[in-house]
Amino acid sequence: MRLRNKPWAGEYLAENPQIVIQDPQSYKGKWHEIFGNDHPIHIEVGTGKGQFVTGMGRANPSINYIGIELFESVIVHAVKKVKESEANNVKLLNVNANNLTEYFAPAEVSRVYLNFSDPWPKTKHEKRRLTYKTFLDLYKEILVEEGEIHFKTDNQGLFEYSLKSFSDYGLKLTYISLDLHNSDFEGNIMTEYEEKFSSKGQRIYRSEVKYEKK
Amino acid sequence: MRLRNKPWAGEYLAENPQIVIQDPQSYKGKWHEIFGNDHPIHIEVGTGKGQFVTGMGRANPSINYIGIELFESVIVHAVKKVKESEANNVKLLNVNANNLTEYFAPAEVSRVYLNFSDPWPKTKHEKRRLTYKTFLDLYKEILVEEGEIHFKTDNQGLFEYSLKSFSDYGLKLTYISLDLHNSDFEGNIMTEYEEKFSSKGQRIYRSEVKYEKK
Repeated sequence: MRLRNKPWAGEYLAENPQIVIQDPQSYKGKWHEIFGNDHPIHIEVGTGKGQFVTGMGRANPSINYIGIELFESVIVHAVKKVKESEANNVKLLNVNANNLTEYFAPAEVSRVYLNFSDPWPKTKHEKRRLTYKTFLDLYKEILVEEGEIHFKTDNQGLFEYSLKSFSDYGLKLTYISLDLHNSDFEGNIMTEYEEKFSSKGQRIYRSEVKYEKK
Repeated sequence: MRLRNKPWAGEYLAENPQIVIQDPQSYKGKWHEIFGNDHPIHIEVGTGKGQFVTGMGRANPSINYIGIELFESVIVHAVKKVKESEANNVKLLNVNANNLTEYFAPAEVSRVYLNFSDPWPKTKHEKRRLTYKTFLDLYKEILVEEGEIHFKTDNQGLFEYSLKSFSDYGLKLTYISLDLHNSDFEGNIMTEYEEKFSSKGQRIYRSEVKYEKK
């Protein structure tokens, strides 16, 4: 994603603390207090401009969503979308996914969404891919028993890599589509990126994997 | 594959017993006697008209190949190809894959190839798919420790199903291409079917999986 410098972004985030949670470490193990209920928590790692997490929040009022995005200049768009949707089950974190375990306690999260993650195609950048084993370790730590990762991408190389990485880790493949938009999958919420690339005829790949019982 | 009745087929097979091995049960555990060496044995289940197994035999003289095909009217084409190639490392069996363990002893086979297997798309026919768990049991029984299945198909549904079936069985995915003919995979030998369908722009999917240590 092309990043434009937005000098006002930091200020804008600080002005919306009910959406972009400040000092998220202090809520580790207590996210239900933020939402005011005991609904399951699903997180999206790399939430981008927020169309997916906002759409999911609207479609599934009994799930709590937390979108995680590193870039200030990108997450501001997500903040606007959440504000407009008036959803109270969607929150955002402007943090680095490497530190997920600082923000979530073991078994606090029920599902991880990865959508159109950066493919980092060079082998030397493998460790940065969000489906690399160290990230699978992080997700495992914060997920419930038999927690799930739902992953979609248009990037063939990243999808191939991720299927091998999941298998190598011992995750069970419970769903796969090699052409999501021509499949019978129901209830797909598109990301901004997905809308753009699928309209050009690009295939979308999608998988669900599950951790084994602990 | 469209099957034409060939009344002469049975006779033709009987006339070529050096290629189509008769009474294969009697060679269980003794296939090296047939080949006259101790090279690894790779089998192709559903060998069709034999272009793959013949091409592999030619390309890899230090591997022994056995092509298995149920239909007489199809395997006759494979017999002709093996004869023409003059390969002495390629043999054929006109038997049903359900009975593999009658013909091969435990650990007698090093690799199983499945190429463009019948997709049996109806759910009620799932058990007939060559990547269904009962077939994975059969392959496991005759394969060496950490034996491999190499699988390619143009059928998206069968490929998706097979990846789930492999994962469910605990097989490790060691290779995957979602577009074989546009990948950097080297040494691909095409089947007759693959030539026909890939020339129409159909994608070819390919995977390799490995059994765990026993």
